[in-house]
Amino acid sequence: MKKYLLTPGPTPIPAEVAESMAKPIIHHRTKQYRDIFQTVNDKLKSAFKTENNVLTFASSGTGAMEASVCNSLSKGDSVIVIRGGKFGERFAEICEAYGVNVLPFDIEWGTRPEAPALEEILKENRKVKAVFTQLCETSTATVYDIKSIAGVVNKTGAILVVDVISGLGSDEFDMDGWGVDIAIGGSQKGLMLPPGLSFCAVSKKAWDMVKKSTLPRYYYDFAKYDKLIEKSDNPFTPAITLVVGLEKALSIITQNGVDNFVAGHRKDASYVRDYIAGLGLSLFSRFPSDAVTAVNVPESVDGAKLIDSLKTNGITFAGGQGHLKGKIFRIAHMGGISREDLQFALGKLKETLEELTSNKQG
Amino acid sequence: MKKYLLTPGPTPIPAEVAESMAKPIIHHRTKQYRDIFQTVNDKLKSAFKTENNVLTFASSGTGAMEASVCNSLSKGDSVIVIRGGKFGERFAEICEAYGVNVLPFDIEWGTRPEAPALEEILKENRKVKAVFTQLCETSTATVYDIKSIAGVVNKTGAILVVDVISGLGSDEFDMDGWGVDIAIGGSQKGLMLPPGLSFCAVSKKAWDMVKKSTLPRYYYDFAKYDKLIEKSDNPFTPAITLVVGLEKALSIITQNGVDNFVAGHRKDASYVRDYIAGLGLSLFSRFPSDAVTAVNVPESVDGAKLIDSLKTNGITFAGGQGHLKGKIFRIAHMGGISREDLQFALGKLKETLEELTSNKQG
Repeated sequence: MKKYLLTPGPTPIPAEVAESMAKPIIHHRTKQYRDIFQTVNDKLKSAFKTENNVLTFASSGTGAMEASVCNSLSKGDSVIVIRGGKFGERFAEICEAYGVNVLPFDIEWGTRPEAPALEEILKENRKVKAVFTQLCETSTATVYDIKSIAGVVNKTGAILVVDVISGLGSDEFDMDGWGVDIAIGGSQKGLMLPPGLSFCAVSKKAWDMVKKSTLPRYYYDFAKYDKLIEKSDNPFTPAITLVVGLEKALSIITQNGVDNFVAGHRKDASYVRDYIAGLGLSLFSRFPSDAVTAVNVPESVDGAKLIDSLKTNGITFAGGQGHLKGKIFRIAHMGGISREDLQFALGKLKETLEELTSNKQG
Repeated sequence: MKKYLLTPGPTPIPAEVAESMAKPIIHHRTKQYRDIFQTVNDKLKSAFKTENNVLTFASSGTGAMEASVCNSLSKGDSVIVIRGGKFGERFAEICEAYGVNVLPFDIEWGTRPEAPALEEILKENRKVKAVFTQLCETSTATVYDIKSIAGVVNKTGAILVVDVISGLGSDEFDMDGWGVDIAIGGSQKGLMLPPGLSFCAVSKKAWDMVKKSTLPRYYYDFAKYDKLIEKSDNPFTPAITLVVGLEKALSIITQNGVDNFVAGHRKDASYVRDYIAGLGLSLFSRFPSDAVTAVNVPESVDGAKLIDSLKTNGITFAGGQGHLKGKIFRIAHMGGISREDLQFALGKLKETLEELTSNKQG
C-alpha cells in the first residue's frame, strides 16, 4: 500500500533527493564536498531571500532556535515572545532556560499577532533586545504577518527573530525585503529532506548584537560557522548525507524560481481549503498558512478515531498538539507533497467521515 | 574506480544500512518508529556496555561533548581536562565557553595520561567536579587507559567524562565495568553511519550532578531526553533516517557479540601496524588505538603529496591535525572498513612510497 505522509514534518523525500543520499558517503574535507556545500549556501540564500550568510547546523530545528537565543542575548536581557501556539511557547522556554527575561505577547491560538499591538508593547518596553515569533505557527497552521511585524520592530533597536521552519518554501517570506534579523529553518518540512539539519540566516543588525552577547555557546557558535563558510567549510563534522540531499532539494525549489515554488503551494493550500469547505468542515485558523491546514474535528466525530482510520488506508495526518489534541487534524501541503497525494487523501477523508458519521447514526 | 574512504570518520556505510535509510521516510510519532528506537536504545546499551540509558541527539559528536559539560556543571566549577590532542583541547574550549575553570593535564601528543599522575592532581585539587578525556584521541590515534583512569577518579567525588566517539566498537570499552560516568558517542565512526547522531550514556553518579548543575541548556537537556526514553520517544524531532540506519548498524555490531566485533578490529589494527613496520615506517603513537593508526611520514617524503597521490587511486587517508599537519598520516580501521580494503590500500601505499622516493632520487 502506498503511504501518504501528509504531516507538517517529516514530509516525503523526492526520489532524486533520496538517491543522492544513498550514494557512497564522501569526506567533508574534500573539494567534492566543498563544491556541494557552496552550491547549497548560494541556494539557501535564494530560498530565504537574503544576501546574509545562512549558517547550517547538524541538529533539529529546536537547536537553531536555541542558537538564535544564545548567540544574540545576555543574561537578564528582556525580550518579547509571541505565544500563539506550541512553537511560540518553545521560544519562551528556551529564553527562560538562559535567564533571559520573557515578556510574553499571548494571542489566542489560531489567530495572529497584530503589528499595532506589538508596537504598543515595544513602546512600553524600550529596553527589549529581541522579538521572537514564527512565520507559520505549525501547531495552529496559522501564518503570521511578518512583513507588518518587521515594520514595527525595525523602528526599534530590537532584532526580529523568526522561526520559518515550517513556513519556508510554502508561505511567502522575504528576509531582506521585510527586514528580518534572524531566520531559522529546518530540513524536514518545505526543504523535502529528512530531519537533522537546521539553519540560521543572520542580518547585519543581528551580528552587531552577537558581538555583544555573553550567553555561553560552543557547538552553535555563529562566529565559528560564519568564519568558515566563505571557504565552504564547517567547524564540526557536518551531516554530510543531508547536505548532499539538500543540494538536490534546493535545485528543485529554485529551478523555476522560489516564487513559483511558493505559488504552487499557495494553489495546493487553496485546493485543500476549498475541499474542506465543500465537506462542510471549518478551519481552525483565522489566518490559514499555505504550508499546512488545520481542520476542526466535527462534534459528531472522534478525532483520534478519524486519524487512526485514515492511517489504515496509508494516510497520515497530524492531530492537534497541547489543548488541541483530538479537536483538530492537520493536513500538510508543503515540500514534496503533490496535488495527487492531496486529492487521494482528501477523497479518503470524505469516505472516512461518512463512515464514522453513519456508524454513529446506525 | 572504487573509493576507499579510510578516514577516522566518516567511514563507509554497509549496503544494508544504506538501503534501510533510502526507504520512504516514516513519522517519528508512530509505533513503527518507536519500535525501531526501542531496539536502538537496547543495543546502544550493549555497545556501551552499560545499564544506563544512552541518550541520542540529532547533532555531531561535538554537540554531545557540549551536552556533557552544560548538563553536569555550574559556572565557576573546576574540572581537569586531559589535553593530549585536538579533541582533548576541544573539551577545554567547551568548558571555558561556559565559564568552567579548566585545570589542564597536558601530555605530549601521542602519549597517554597515566593514572598515578592524575591521582596526584586530583589530590591537590579536591574540589574538582569532573575529569574529561578520550578513549581514543583521534588526532594522535592513541588509546588511553580508561580503566586505570576510572580507578583513580572513582575514588573521588568527581565524575569521569569520556569521549568514545572514535574508539567505540574498535577499542575495548566497558562503561559500567570500569566506572565511567558520561560516555559520549558519535554515529560516523565505529557505528558505520553518516554523521548527524551523537550519544551520551549517563551514570547514576553523573545524574546526581546533573540535578545540581545550573549551566543553561535546552536542546541538549539530558532530563528532557531521559524522561521520554522509556516511551521510546524524543523531546524534539529526531534524525529519523539515521536512527533507522542505526538499528541495522547495531544489528551488525551485536550479532556475534560486541566483544567479537571489537576483536575483529584489534586484528585489523595489528595487521595494519605489522604492514607499516614491514615498510620500515614508524608509528606516531606510543599507545596505538585499534580504531585508527597514525604513521610518521618518512623524512624523504612530502606528506601532502603522499596523501594526494593515494587519492588519485581512490584511497583517502587522513592527514595530521594541528601541528602534525604533513608529519603524519592516519589509516582508519574502524566500523565497516574491511580487511580487503586495508590490504588494497596498504599495497597502494607501498607502491606510492616507492614512486615518491624513486622520483626524489631520480
